[in-house]
Amino acid sequence: MEFHETNGFTKITVTEAHTTEETMTTLTLHNPVFATYAIAASLMILKIMGQGWMTVYRMLKVSSGWATPEDLRPGLINRAPDPAQLELNDYVDRSRRMHRNDLENIPAFLACGLLFVLAQPSLLLAQVLMYGFAATRLVHAVVYATGQPHEVRATFYTIGSVIVIVMALYVLVAAVG
Amino acid sequence: MEFHETNGFTKITVTEAHTTEETMTTLTLHNPVFATYAIAASLMILKIMGQGWMTVYRMLKVSSGWATPEDLRPGLINRAPDPAQLELNDYVDRSRRMHRNDLENIPAFLACGLLFVLAQPSLLLAQVLMYGFAATRLVHAVVYATGQPHEVRATFYTIGSVIVIVMALYVLVAAVG
Amino acid sequence: MEFHETNGFTKITVTEAHTTEETMTTLTLHNPVFATYAIAASLMILKIMGQGWMTVYRMLKVSSGWATPEDLRPGLINRAPDPAQLELNDYVDRSRRMHRNDLENIPAFLACGLLFVLAQPSLLLAQVLMYGFAATRLVHAVVYATGQPHEVRATFYTIGSVIVIVMALYVLVAAVG
Repeated sequence: MEFHETNGFTKITVTEAHTTEETMTTLTLHNPVFATYAIAASLMILKIMGQGWMTVYRMLKVSSGWATPEDLRPGLINRAPDPAQLELNDYVDRSRRMHRNDLENIPAFLACGLLFVLAQPSLLLAQVLMYGFAATRLVHAVVYATGQPHEVRATFYTIGSVIVIVMALYVLVAAVG
Repeated sequence: MEFHETNGFTKITVTEAHTTEETMTTLTLHNPVFATYAIAASLMILKIMGQGWMTVYRMLKVSSGWATPEDLRPGLINRAPDPAQLELNDYVDRSRRMHRNDLENIPAFLACGLLFVLAQPSLLLAQVLMYGFAATRLVHAVVYATGQPHEVRATFYTIGSVIVIVMALYVLVAAVG
Repeated sequence: MEFHETNGFTKITVTEAHTTEETMTTLTLHNPVFATYAIAASLMILKIMGQGWMTVYRMLKVSSGWATPEDLRPGLINRAPDPAQLELNDYVDRSRRMHRNDLENIPAFLACGLLFVLAQPSLLLAQVLMYGFAATRLVHAVVYATGQPHEVRATFYTIGSVIVIVMALYVLVAAVG
């Protein structure tokens, strides 16, 4: 901001730096790029948390695939304990593998997406990449849960992974350049 | 910011947009909502990192539960190698399961908490949810480490998970609406 | 910002609050501390995503270590299915263990690094800790992939872990104090 005084009165010239303006409006829901991130990120957070509940649901449904020895104690959750309940159960373990796959992809997306917003991409690019990632991961979950062929699962994994890599490279180039 | 000139002197009217003011003061430790997040988040980060050290401590204590074949080579860490050291050891694996449970919950909280701050909740709501999450996860760790009944562990897992889900829905509604 | 009127003309005094100035310039790539974080974080995000591709590469190379039963169906990825392909394969599992080790460390760093930037450390401290973390994790990956002795792997794990702990304590002290 600059001020120039002329004659007996004041002429005021306001020239705020571009940078400051940008930063001030970047991380607010009024910024459509940030709102895009907030929507994609909250959906992905719900995906991670929901996967935990899918594991719980499956453990309770088949009363098997328990996580830890003390879960064999009789109680409200486990009324008829049996040592076999600690064995690997594919129905339950599938949900855990889906969860692990989420953890290998989603936290990196969550951190990368915020950096991407701060690197100020176009709204269209942000929407394509972020909604693309979210959609891909949701389809990947359906594909994994229903045991579709490896090629189908790999395709959706690949799209999601490449999106995060593109976003990370975008941030890296913007930060180094 | 607007400037109105009147008569021979200058009348200045400052009317900064509400949005700008909000954003400018959101992500600073002077904002008590952000400070709440910073405290809860740093505690949870210490929890994750500490869990890694609990696994190291337990591996060294029982000299078992090693992670990978080359750990059977004799050295400062392993003076009397034995192939059985690579077998699953519940004392060590319990710490790894606790770590995995952390990874299924805490990174989602860390990303969600920042978005939650930017969605500008009341300080009370932020404190209840964020300190509630941190407290719940710390109690969950004690419950898991000491092998308490499944019902107790499940209760604290549930509270923490529901808190993150509530925060994510809050952000989603604020971003879409 | 304050405005003082004197005589027939206007004297303008600009005294923006320190807080506002800081926040406005913190999360922009023009801030070298934030740029340091953006570089270290995007490298670590690429590390996580790359680890997934190392697992894929190794699975395809040895056609083994498959993740889930349906991967035994014949298809483009698996032309000669064999139940033994689902067994643990150390070459593939090593990449998964590296991935898990990343997940136990990097997401915590990503969240902690952003908080650390907002706690406004010196540029030198930020560079030492953040580039130190990134370098340590990259060396850790090489050490793990090539099966170096436990002592070497443990050293680089320790440095990276201590860096995140130091950053988290820095944030905690700044937020509480």
